[in-house]
Amino acid sequence: MEALDYHAEERRKAEFDVEEMKIAWAGSRQAYEISDRVSRLVASDPVFRKDNRTMLSRKELFNDTLKKAAHAWKRVIELRLSEEEAGKLRFFVDQPAFSDLHWGMFIPAIKGSGTEEQKAKWLPMAYKMQIIGCYAQTELGHGSNVQGLETTATFDPHTDEFVLHSPTLTSSKWWPGGLGKVATHAVAYARLITNGQDHGVHGFIVQLRSLDDHLPLPGITVGDIGMKFGSGAYNSMDNGLLRFDHVRIPRDQMLMGVSQVTREGKYMQSDVPRQLVYGTMVYVRQKIVADASSALSRAVCIATRYSAVRRQFGSQNGGPETQVIDYKTQQSRLFPLLASAYAFRFVGEWLKWLYTDVTQRLHANDFSTLPEVHACTAGLKSITTSATADAIEECRKLCGGHGYLSSSGLPELFAVYIPACTYEGDNTVLLLQVGRFLMKTVFQLGSGKKPVGTIAYMGRAEHLLQCHCEVQRAEDWLKPHIIVEAFEARSARMAVACSKNINKFPKQEDGFAELSADLAEAAVAHCQLIVVSKFIEKLQQDIPGKGVKRQLEILCSVYALSLLHKHLGDFVASGCITPEQGALANEQLRLLYSQVRPNAIALVDAFNYTDHYLGSILGRYDGNVYPKLYEEAWKDPLNETVVPDGYHEYIRPILKQHIRVARL
Amino acid sequence: MEALDYHAEERRKAEFDVEEMKIAWAGSRQAYEISDRVSRLVASDPVFRKDNRTMLSRKELFNDTLKKAAHAWKRVIELRLSEEEAGKLRFFVDQPAFSDLHWGMFIPAIKGSGTEEQKAKWLPMAYKMQIIGCYAQTELGHGSNVQGLETTATFDPHTDEFVLHSPTLTSSKWWPGGLGKVATHAVAYARLITNGQDHGVHGFIVQLRSLDDHLPLPGITVGDIGMKFGSGAYNSMDNGLLRFDHVRIPRDQMLMGVSQVTREGKYMQSDVPRQLVYGTMVYVRQKIVADASSALSRAVCIATRYSAVRRQFGSQNGGPETQVIDYKTQQSRLFPLLASAYAFRFVGEWLKWLYTDVTQRLHANDFSTLPEVHACTAGLKSITTSATADAIEECRKLCGGHGYLSSSGLPELFAVYIPACTYEGDNTVLLLQVGRFLMKTVFQLGSGKKPVGTIAYMGRAEHLLQCHCEVQRAEDWLKPHIIVEAFEARSARMAVACSKNINKFPKQEDGFAELSADLAEAAVAHCQLIVVSKFIEKLQQDIPGKGVKRQLEILCSVYALSLLHKHLGDFVASGCITPEQGALANEQLRLLYSQVRPNAIALVDAFNYTDHYLGSILGRYDGNVYPKLYEEAWKDPLNETVVPDGYHEYIRPILKQHIRVARL
Repeated sequence: MEALDYHAEERRKAEFDVEEMKIAWAGSRQAYEISDRVSRLVASDPVFRKDNRTMLSRKELFNDTLKKAAHAWKRVIELRLSEEEAGKLRFFVDQPAFSDLHWGMFIPAIKGSGTEEQKAKWLPMAYKMQIIGCYAQTELGHGSNVQGLETTATFDPHTDEFVLHSPTLTSSKWWPGGLGKVATHAVAYARLITNGQDHGVHGFIVQLRSLDDHLPLPGITVGDIGMKFGSGAYNSMDNGLLRFDHVRIPRDQMLMGVSQVTREGKYMQSDVPRQLVYGTMVYVRQKIVADASSALSRAVCIATRYSAVRRQFGSQNGGPETQVIDYKTQQSRLFPLLASAYAFRFVGEWLKWLYTDVTQRLHANDFSTLPEVHACTAGLKSITTSATADAIEECRKLCGGHGYLSSSGLPELFAVYIPACTYEGDNTVLLLQVGRFLMKTVFQLGSGKKPVGTIAYMGRAEHLLQCHCEVQRAEDWLKPHIIVEAFEARSARMAVACSKNINKFPKQEDGFAELSADLAEAAVAHCQLIVVSKFIEKLQQDIPGKGVKRQLEILCSVYALSLLHKHLGDFVASGCITPEQGALANEQLRLLYSQVRPNAIALVDAFNYTDHYLGSILGRYDGNVYPKLYEEAWKDPLNETVVPDGYHEYIRPILKQHIRVARL
Repeated sequence: MEALDYHAEERRKAEFDVEEMKIAWAGSRQAYEISDRVSRLVASDPVFRKDNRTMLSRKELFNDTLKKAAHAWKRVIELRLSEEEAGKLRFFVDQPAFSDLHWGMFIPAIKGSGTEEQKAKWLPMAYKMQIIGCYAQTELGHGSNVQGLETTATFDPHTDEFVLHSPTLTSSKWWPGGLGKVATHAVAYARLITNGQDHGVHGFIVQLRSLDDHLPLPGITVGDIGMKFGSGAYNSMDNGLLRFDHVRIPRDQMLMGVSQVTREGKYMQSDVPRQLVYGTMVYVRQKIVADASSALSRAVCIATRYSAVRRQFGSQNGGPETQVIDYKTQQSRLFPLLASAYAFRFVGEWLKWLYTDVTQRLHANDFSTLPEVHACTAGLKSITTSATADAIEECRKLCGGHGYLSSSGLPELFAVYIPACTYEGDNTVLLLQVGRFLMKTVFQLGSGKKPVGTIAYMGRAEHLLQCHCEVQRAEDWLKPHIIVEAFEARSARMAVACSKNINKFPKQEDGFAELSADLAEAAVAHCQLIVVSKFIEKLQQDIPGKGVKRQLEILCSVYALSLLHKHLGDFVASGCITPEQGALANEQLRLLYSQVRPNAIALVDAFNYTDHYLGSILGRYDGNVYPKLYEEAWKDPLNETVVPDGYHEYIRPILKQHIRVARL
């Protein structure tokens, strides 16, 4: 018996080798094999079931998280999984948990800012999870501005200890994941005070809970901050609050990799360059960009598959209605998101390379690329997460009414994803950092200092401010060099225009403040250029598999031209292209959609997601949507009884007019 | 003792009479007084408490809804509230319930499509809630395309009955609110079949549940469709599914106001014009636009107030940090939304007038304005709901991390609002209807048929295709006639360009299909023009109160210029304005933000929302945010115990490495 597959016809239409595309998507055959194996492992394990998640109460959901985390750890040990495999396992379990912060923030913080001795002491315990750590930075009144944190760590030379204290309500630690109910330890950030002098914010390893009975240690108030967006979603995580009432820790629990406090209370900088900590930041941000492509591709996979199942209008002679994926309005909203998923995937791959490159340079004391790398990673974090958050919601809308059902998976995906726009740098704040970097680059153009890396094109600003786009026919827009030059010219012109306007202000800082919205727009233009360029660079490599490269070329053009259409004002107003060329780009885009159409299902199959990971009835691999939606509905607790609880108390009195009678 | 008010200083800064603005916002002194009184009534009643809503399980939440609905009905009777007041009461109770559909869809459907006899029979029972009705149209496989519904109502001349039947799984009714657990009756839509002939979709009054014991009647399968987006939110509603297995109803339960089936099974059109049903549609859509301004203003109120409380960066000499509302990036994202709230409010008021106007015309057999009214209401429904959905999420982001907490109120507001983009016409489908109307208007331009109402400007297309914008200095953009002409020229040029491109296709229908994305963009341009024009028209009226009109003028300019900036590509590429004029508009916009800033808090105070209705700690009237966030956190069920349930089972075994031991 053949397996049911409503998408079989769609899959036959594909013009490329899907198995090879899976490898291109994963980055390598090895990466593909690990993902494939671990995702199946998770999908087949009943403990990791998540289809009832949105129906659980907060307490049940949290208990479920604990159960899954313990089981995941058990499987990691039993199967002797590598660190990479263990990370993949947590990824496919797909439920935010304290362990994410333990592995993703607590351990990296000690590795990045601890001394060798500190690492030797704490890391083995952490690797074995004999202690569970969190990362306690953000406070109730202080987020983006880390330097504004209020918690204090005052050195007491009499006892050789730091006294951690929360002097105000707004200094309460607030948000750290795992803090609320689980973590035994934290890397807590506080203002270091020695001899009455404030040395700014530093990290401290603090034990929070007893390893015997899990009770908070004296002086520590700790709890969960309460419900967050959505049902299921991030409510599985115990984001916590924390207050210190003169909590004492030994001096050697300050993370002293970069600065130290001596026995006498003297504050000293080590000879290790401060810049080393930027390595961690690049690492964290490349991971966020990779996560963006995962979340986006997941939403796109659901919306694309359901768009092929769903039919509306266009029935002829009583035949079936038209698949909604055949409508140009649907394509013009969906296919740019499909293209973005691939674009973000490849720029994420490139960021992995950048991380290795910058780490090597830092260890060789070469800090020359650091400002550019910093701006580039900040900007890419910002634009990929913002675009992904919007795209998930757009995919939900593209599924019509049923996208609003929890069983579509999209509401929870949205709810769980959107914090990425805020954590690790608010997206607007990050864009302004990129904007400042752009301005600095422009201001230095005459100085002989050559822009490097992703900003190198600014070295050709003179040309870019004057060049004319060569497009004469729609298909000219398929040429990579024409695309790149248009995006370079747009970014250069916006940056230069901004710098000129800033210089009109008597005080440059006032210019930066007043024109910050323009700066953010220039930053977006710069970052979109990076994504487009890296996609194009990817296509200059050898990519095996029948038709694979061809499909990626089409998606690359869709990505670039849809951005051009969306930001047409930038391109036309700055004179990079003419209105006619803009219209030709739009015409080309429409033709490209027709080329994507027959390959759409196969292009989302290439993400190789299990139905478990997708967590969506609309996105099921086999397309068997409606019977399963119907089946799922009956599982709702409200359907446990035919007559609802509350009928006798609240409904019947209305119908029988007993409310009125009661009053007379 | 003076009441705590952290916003007192902000309120003192206001340059206008807030009380008079409240009346301008409400539409009239009377409307203001009713809203004010009813909202306080609800806010002070403990039964209507909703601050714990997101923590309730589905069953608890639904029970809470039943309780509130019964209590609301009790209050309506006790206080002898008018229909308007009762509607306001349900509005301020702010929890989706079966009663919304009973009053908002079931009763209007009978009023709109029933015969006099049917109205006399059913409406009195419905008004007393002796029966509770729902509106069962949408099916599992059929939403936008009403003509594609599959449920059948076959006339059986032997018994003088209709037999209602669900022939397929996809024909199951799916989504109707109140259907799942409460409604005793439905207006159900089904294909009318007499003598083997299909007469298309008609409405039928069907009893679903026994009035004695609330059990479903024979042949009826009914239940809830399960969890939806978010916690709290629309999960208070029993959106339902319904299947008919040859259910028989008397012939006189077909709604026969427009067409009839005789005793012999003959299908007849009545002499009542079909167009009368459009009156209901205009009514429903004007209500949706009014709701958009409510939801948007609520989100804006929260984000504006919290932006004045929240401080980040910019501390000088250890002083307080800068209020985030003082940052231009914050202003450039927030103030256009504030302006949109007012713009949507006024266009909603105008739609109320339009409804009266069109009703009068219909009764006088004047159908001349109908196509224009239809396009106008469809388009306004689409753009205001889409903009509002996006704006709520933007407001959440503008609140930083804390916007993600349920206690900010914004997650639930988003979750409960977004269905408005889908119900009563999917927003994209509606835009395409507007697009078709625009094309028809353009194609007829030479024919001597004069466009009327909101499309009248197309009569001046010749001028609008050639005119040059007169702006020379930034402040020229404050002139209403310049704004209007720019928006008219943009819309006219986009529509004409579209029509030319459509005509390039051998078959016009292919042109419509291929260029549908362009059509939708042209439709947006047309609808934005309507909103801008109606705002400007409003300002030509007498508006009492010191400084009130001045503030509205500023907001009107902010609304128009921020749209111009966002859609700069449309304006510049079509040659309506030059790039330099676009830059001047942006400069003017920035200056306007500085004028909005001191009035921002007062402008959201003018919405006159109670803290109960706002449902947001961040948006509290008194600005006492942080202590209340802290207090709220402790109410989470996870904080009932210090050591979480599951510690012994799941956390301790990890820490004590019993997982490893268990395996050896």
